[in-house]
Amino acid sequence: MRKVAIINYGMTKVDKHWKKSLRELFGDAAKAALKDARVPGLDALIVGNMCASDLSDQNNIGALLADYLGITPILAYRVEAACGSGAAAILAAYSAVASGMNDIVMTGGVEKLSDGVGGNTTLALGKAADADYELFFGSSFVSLNALIMNHYMHTYNTPRESFADFAVLMHKNGARNPYAQLPFEISRETVMNSDRIADPITLFDCAPVGDGAAALILCPLEDAPKYSDSFVEIGGIAGATDTINVASRADLLSLNSTIVAADRAYKMAKVTPADVDVAEVHDTFTITGALSIEDLGFCEKGKFAKLLAERAFEPGGVVVVNPSGGLKSRGHPVGATGAYQVAEVAMQLLGKAERMQVSDAEVGLTQNIGGSGSSSFVSILRRVK
Amino acid sequence: MRKVAIINYGMTKVDKHWKKSLRELFGDAAKAALKDARVPGLDALIVGNMCASDLSDQNNIGALLADYLGITPILAYRVEAACGSGAAAILAAYSAVASGMNDIVMTGGVEKLSDGVGGNTTLALGKAADADYELFFGSSFVSLNALIMNHYMHTYNTPRESFADFAVLMHKNGARNPYAQLPFEISRETVMNSDRIADPITLFDCAPVGDGAAALILCPLEDAPKYSDSFVEIGGIAGATDTINVASRADLLSLNSTIVAADRAYKMAKVTPADVDVAEVHDTFTITGALSIEDLGFCEKGKFAKLLAERAFEPGGVVVVNPSGGLKSRGHPVGATGAYQVAEVAMQLLGKAERMQVSDAEVGLTQNIGGSGSSSFVSILRRVK
Repeated sequence: MRKVAIINYGMTKVDKHWKKSLRELFGDAAKAALKDARVPGLDALIVGNMCASDLSDQNNIGALLADYLGITPILAYRVEAACGSGAAAILAAYSAVASGMNDIVMTGGVEKLSDGVGGNTTLALGKAADADYELFFGSSFVSLNALIMNHYMHTYNTPRESFADFAVLMHKNGARNPYAQLPFEISRETVMNSDRIADPITLFDCAPVGDGAAALILCPLEDAPKYSDSFVEIGGIAGATDTINVASRADLLSLNSTIVAADRAYKMAKVTPADVDVAEVHDTFTITGALSIEDLGFCEKGKFAKLLAERAFEPGGVVVVNPSGGLKSRGHPVGATGAYQVAEVAMQLLGKAERMQVSDAEVGLTQNIGGSGSSSFVSILRRVK
Repeated sequence: MRKVAIINYGMTKVDKHWKKSLRELFGDAAKAALKDARVPGLDALIVGNMCASDLSDQNNIGALLADYLGITPILAYRVEAACGSGAAAILAAYSAVASGMNDIVMTGGVEKLSDGVGGNTTLALGKAADADYELFFGSSFVSLNALIMNHYMHTYNTPRESFADFAVLMHKNGARNPYAQLPFEISRETVMNSDRIADPITLFDCAPVGDGAAALILCPLEDAPKYSDSFVEIGGIAGATDTINVASRADLLSLNSTIVAADRAYKMAKVTPADVDVAEVHDTFTITGALSIEDLGFCEKGKFAKLLAERAFEPGGVVVVNPSGGLKSRGHPVGATGAYQVAEVAMQLLGKAERMQVSDAEVGLTQNIGGSGSSSFVSILRRVK
């Protein structure tokens, strides 16, 4: 199996891009990714997206984007794993390069949630849940996660304020991110006093709805120096699943798909959680951030609030979590989120993160979830000396 | 790169399965595929689907099916390339096995078009076209293909009846297929006198709308004898794209994505069109069948009708085309169609096609299209001596 490198990346600011279509959004990210890469051409385009069919009346996204970028007759297809689509596309692109089927592959994700022409965003996002056994009965993502958050607070005797403090940290980080949708700081009171969406979740516990695209260029590690002066290695990448229906889980407070995907990725990269310097994790809601941090092995189960208070997830702590601001502040353009995470961690390892920079980061991790934990994808990136 | 084998397959009859949900349909195909395979377990599930979000309110198909099959925490994701989704999923699964990332992978496709809960089927299928420049202006697939058919008849002075005769042949073949949605013979008059859908296309020029699922199990070729007494090799597999908007094509009467994908697959498998004994090609409409046969290299451009009359696409001719009955008679459960084709050709090479059997088939081809030719996927299967 060939080793795989990321030689460049491009992102659009996450925002309500009223004047940009799906193809234009990805086009901007793709052009940024191609800007400094001296590649002779691309061999494949593998892109993640969740909601284009519902909100842009558009399927066949691979051909759409290949056409817009002027790179037909390239091989192109779309990958979908709900909000994990971006990372799933990167995993498929990794296989394509590792196998030798393709040499230079553009991957990433794109999502246009605002200005939906074909439906409503809450329903479109709800289709990541079990249509027959959850959505049909009116369960939305936020209601399912509110049940989990209540159960967590009760089980581990965790104060509501700790979750607010996580949102505060995310906004503090995101305020330094030029690509963030909500680049401003907030206080604990902002979270506690914002509108209740599904008790105990308030508006500021939730990731915002936004549009965005992130693109990455992958090639064999041994060829990377030909195409770029700076690159990172994908040391490990893996995915795993759990029951799609939250009620069927063995344990509501563990994301088993994250535990398994992380275990596979750590083994593949031959690292442990202790080796990770920087991590971009999936915090759709503040409770999701807490579960993710625990299940990735950065923190004992139930101890999230304690470690958060000890600043374990900030520079100088156990691991720097979401220097981008995470889904909470950078934003959550669902099928693109996993691609943003990988681009952001690559940027950190290359020392190009400017005001977000984590000093001397050598090993980074990303974790991207589909549904309420029914799919998880974890990647481990490594700085190449 | 590891060589890849198909060790087993399973299909449901294509039909209006009013009483089967999306997951149950794929479950039936998956169980049939697993029945005689002595595999210790599965490492990944990569499945094609186009319309579940629109018609079943369901995304996150990988997790949904892994959960239903009881194979979590397996890696699982969905691949989409409109009507080419099934073949695109098989290509992604091929990469996963060829790379060494996964050993035993279930792939295939599933589609539930009848009993749509969330929308209408014509609109859902139309999302394979360009939403902004075709669908928005009222172009449906059938209207776009009617323009192409008129242009073909005019350019090559081809009688309307020749297209009807292709439908007659497809139904003759499909009448022997226990999995076919329309397993009955028709006459030229049936086609000529059936309802006009978009002139010159009549009802019997069109593939029917139906539900279905097909599943395949892939593993490294060298391991195949451990798991199965009979298997075929995937000698070549490739995809290519063209403009998504039909009006932007350099030539309306050539499927350039098919030409390029076939060229790549032939080279990978080290064969030529003359080596192919049996082919399952994508005949959404009779005109699509004609263009596909020409662009795969089985017939000179514009000579389709002449060769059809000479029985070139039947046993004893140039190549046996669509012994299954093709999309026209077997049916076209869109995101599953490419998986049916691969399962059908594998069945032929293994000599298990019963009343559809093409005698002594050693090399087979499948061609699966997304949109009106904006994506094409071609695979070459080979009997293992």
